[in-house]
Amino acid sequence: MTSPAMTNFRFELLARDGAARTGIIHTPRGDVRTPAFMPVGTAATVKAMLPQSVRETGADILLGNTYHLMLRPGAERIAHLGGLHKFMDWARPILTDSGGFQVMSLSALRKITEEGVKFQSHIDGHAEFLSPERAMEIQRLLGSDIQMVFDECPALPATHAGIEKSMTLSMRWAKRSRTAFDQQTDRERLGRACFGIVQGGTFADLRRRSAEALQEIGFEGYAVGGLAVGEPQNAMFETLEATVPHLPSDQPRYLMGVGKPDDIVGAVLRGIDMFDCVLPTRSGRNGQAFTFEGALNLKNARFADDAAPLDADCGCPACRQFSRAYLHHVVKSGEIIAAMLLTWHNLTHYQRLMEKLRQAIAESRLTQWAAAYRTARQPADNISTLP
Amino acid sequence: MTSPAMTNFRFELLARDGAARTGIIHTPRGDVRTPAFMPVGTAATVKAMLPQSVRETGADILLGNTYHLMLRPGAERIAHLGGLHKFMDWARPILTDSGGFQVMSLSALRKITEEGVKFQSHIDGHAEFLSPERAMEIQRLLGSDIQMVFDECPALPATHAGIEKSMTLSMRWAKRSRTAFDQQTDRERLGRACFGIVQGGTFADLRRRSAEALQEIGFEGYAVGGLAVGEPQNAMFETLEATVPHLPSDQPRYLMGVGKPDDIVGAVLRGIDMFDCVLPTRSGRNGQAFTFEGALNLKNARFADDAAPLDADCGCPACRQFSRAYLHHVVKSGEIIAAMLLTWHNLTHYQRLMEKLRQAIAESRLTQWAAAYRTARQPADNISTLP
Repeated sequence: MTSPAMTNFRFELLARDGAARTGIIHTPRGDVRTPAFMPVGTAATVKAMLPQSVRETGADILLGNTYHLMLRPGAERIAHLGGLHKFMDWARPILTDSGGFQVMSLSALRKITEEGVKFQSHIDGHAEFLSPERAMEIQRLLGSDIQMVFDECPALPATHAGIEKSMTLSMRWAKRSRTAFDQQTDRERLGRACFGIVQGGTFADLRRRSAEALQEIGFEGYAVGGLAVGEPQNAMFETLEATVPHLPSDQPRYLMGVGKPDDIVGAVLRGIDMFDCVLPTRSGRNGQAFTFEGALNLKNARFADDAAPLDADCGCPACRQFSRAYLHHVVKSGEIIAAMLLTWHNLTHYQRLMEKLRQAIAESRLTQWAAAYRTARQPADNISTLP
Repeated sequence: MTSPAMTNFRFELLARDGAARTGIIHTPRGDVRTPAFMPVGTAATVKAMLPQSVRETGADILLGNTYHLMLRPGAERIAHLGGLHKFMDWARPILTDSGGFQVMSLSALRKITEEGVKFQSHIDGHAEFLSPERAMEIQRLLGSDIQMVFDECPALPATHAGIEKSMTLSMRWAKRSRTAFDQQTDRERLGRACFGIVQGGTFADLRRRSAEALQEIGFEGYAVGGLAVGEPQNAMFETLEATVPHLPSDQPRYLMGVGKPDDIVGAVLRGIDMFDCVLPTRSGRNGQAFTFEGALNLKNARFADDAAPLDADCGCPACRQFSRAYLHHVVKSGEIIAAMLLTWHNLTHYQRLMEKLRQAIAESRLTQWAAAYRTARQPADNISTLP
């Protein structure tokens, strides 16, 4: 097991509460408070938000998508323009995924070999290729602070044999990704990190083997991949319980693509430190708003004359400046300000949730907090039941 | 000629330069520097902008649309929620049109009688009715600071007889609008104003008769309506030259629905004080940006690698924080931030234009400034020639 000397990337654990932890990921571009939620900036923009507004919600770090950015505007172009941070005006840390998940979910005519994946762009049908080496090259060109290994993301449910074959391929790709990352000449000076991704579907034995294989290679952090692909919440939680104990306790753990607020609470209880998800931004564009009492659908006619704020405890512009009646009106009218305000609110809500989780862990009262959190939510209004 | 005693609404002329003037419209909700450009907030939002951002561009006053707001969310509802200013979080002055123009341009199955206009909502086909009395009632319910008389807007070109018949109807409606406005019990306390609208197409004799008829009634300001409906620019300018000399010199003059930047410059040279137009906002949503050298289409591939700011002299977020290459990318990707940034830029550009006009008038150099302005613009890139 190698242990790369990253002088500028460091995970500082501040407190533990059961399996949960709170801490700080120190990077040259700024600190990331954990548990952390990373807003998704797919195409070099967190949709419907200016970057300073994303920061105002409390976000310490963004996620960028290798797959989208390689297709448009192109990694070499972004590098020529000074890197992704400058391009999208976000000076703080950026984590980039490797493109593995999007290749599987978005592109057409995929052909997977040991070397990598040939596929067609979902934008214009152009023939493209991703491999561990190319995925890390793209992330270097983007200037990513936390780079993810290139992996295969199989669909669930799948057989044990199918998932095992896929996982072992992902582990060979993880090794090649680490080697390619280690050849980036400025990685140490810039304090960049490379994270491995545990695969193995919902099979505990495969998850354990994957976690061990990644630690043989050695990474600055470990992600749990291949979840949030439609499996029930209890399957996700069971998989975390079978995986997290086999990961290093002194390095960050990242659950990719998760999730709903109660998914996040459950995963933090099981030892996860980092999250990303399009739900707050996508829901905001669909007229849905998260609150600590559950989610609201602003399209609902019951809000047409509601002079109350969306969430009286929230400090975002949607809640400070407008009524539910106004939000209902602009959602129904299809106005862009509806997407802007509800996205801002939802990202603020997610950051408030993370802050409450961090405080509860720091004060060793996470279990009680999580129980009260679940009680306060009204299941009928839960986002999962919205039309 | 009546001269309503409006203690709180007052037009202060600061300087004249030829036919052009600069001044301040004082209202209880704040001052409006003239010549003024009013961003259009059709459905209780300036599209793709938060209200504080609209103010940051330099706007002193917004325009709201009676037609749109009466259909959705409804004038009585907005009144119940505290008025349009509170509803949309804009504490400064709001001018509302009377719905006359939109009834003609947007609704179906119009039936015009002496009493008013029956029409079908363009949203849901609902049967609706607007009259001078109802239009002023709606504007009162909205809490509008400057209320426009209800008028008929005939399509151009039209015969002299057709325009004359329409104009004389509009003058009878103007009288009824003024009477209805005068019955608003709190109009004086709130410093509200009512503006007449000159009609008469491109016929100088009808414009003069209309201007005189309105002054017989007496208003706090006078608008020129029925233009910006597709006529050539020189026809618009000739109509202004035939109209403005017949309007009071000590009250504001408002050219409705205009226009392109060089339309505005030409109209200011001919004595107009106020403007509104959807062009900066609509163009922003279509990837077009105004500069003092002409308009740019950010969709153009020549911007894909352009690291320069959109306009180095502009202080808006699009110009301060991003490159043309980024704006090209987000326009091509259909990202909401493209509409947000380019709308912000275009509204900023329009306000910068108005500020330059005000300064040039104050310093008695408008003619020279306008000549230099026209020279600097590159006709090939003019917005009117954009695809």
